Amino acid sequence: MTESNARRVRGSYTKGRAKRAEILRHAVVVFAESGYRGGSLKEIADGVGLTQAGLLHHFSSKEQLLAEVLDQRDGADLSRLDGVRGWAFIEAIADLVRHNATVPGLVQLYATLSGEAVAEDHPAHGFFTDRYRRIRGLLAEALHAAKADGDVPADLDVDATTVSMIALMDGLQIQWLLDRDRVDMPAVLEAFLARLRAR
Amino acid sequence: MTESNARRVRGSYTKGRAKRAEILRHAVVVFAESGYRGGSLKEIADGVGLTQAGLLHHFSSKEQLLAEVLDQRDGADLSRLDGVRGWAFIEAIADLVRHNATVPGLVQLYATLSGEAVAEDHPAHGFFTDRYRRIRGLLAEALHAAKADGDVPADLDVDATTVSMIALMDGLQIQWLLDRDRVDMPAVLEAFLARLRAR
Repeated sequence: MTESNARRVRGSYTKGRAKRAEILRHAVVVFAESGYRGGSLKEIADGVGLTQAGLLHHFSSKEQLLAEVLDQRDGADLSRLDGVRGWAFIEAIADLVRHNATVPGLVQLYATLSGEAVAEDHPAHGFFTDRYRRIRGLLAEALHAAKADGDVPADLDVDATTVSMIALMDGLQIQWLLDRDRVDMPAVLEAFLARLRAR
Repeated sequence: MTESNARRVRGSYTKGRAKRAEILRHAVVVFAESGYRGGSLKEIADGVGLTQAGLLHHFSSKEQLLAEVLDQRDGADLSRLDGVRGWAFIEAIADLVRHNATVPGLVQLYATLSGEAVAEDHPAHGFFTDRYRRIRGLLAEALHAAKADGDVPADLDVDATTVSMIALMDGLQIQWLLDRDRVDMPAVLEAFLARLRAR
């Protein structure tokens, strides 16, 4: 391959990656607004100046696009929690919720998709079931370590607290998205965490 | 009108009401499975042996059908709380959650619809915004009364507790629907309520 050919191939590879990233960004917007079932490939393709056939050159199906959106978003969130343990892990989650309050579109993506994914035949049903199990596991581990460190009371029911804290965050997203002026999502979580330590 | 004519009219009115009720029951199933956006009038009509045109004789649009499903379900839930005050109101909500754990289809209806209704252009956006404001109002009233009765600590932050309790119930629905063997929805709410009184 001549040098200019190699440059051309590299250039087109880079352009392909940029287009994929653009499609993923727009898919987040469409799935957040309309869900997976209500959001159409046509709408996503239109938004990035492609035909549906052009879009399917980058992603083989709407389902693959959904899987990549979820993996990418989850990876970004989990990287914020990497290597953090005990009570610091719980505080890193509170930071994440404060950050989420600045990106309502992403919060909406999760609220909408997790709501529709409770249906067993939804393509993200397994993803969300596994995701909750994983998050419950990580949170339980952090709470056990916090207990050992004396950061939470020794008699704390770790399993019930784990389920409650995740449920609280999910439910807060719905109320906050519907009524942002009246619901202070980060403050309510912080009050919950303060009570957790203080008991 | 002759007596037999009157009987015929009454009979056809009764049949019409029965068909409407059957359509509403089936719409609950379809909206719970596929959401409002993913659920089609055709699927609802097929399930009750009607054409779409036949269904639209009973309900003028998919949107009207959604509105009637939500009004009917909400009416049934709120009637359980009628005339109950103070801590007894909170306990009646816990009873409702125990009851909900026996009707996953209805829980799924709310989880799916509230998730997609966070989008501002969703036909149930206003319904859910108002519903949460109303429920927060009722719950705050009950907690203030429980405080006056000495059933909860005098320093309880009523507004934060109100938002938290509703968020907890909503989030529990998602985790429970995804993983019913591992998440005990009523038990986690009861533990939250026990802590509320004990503080």
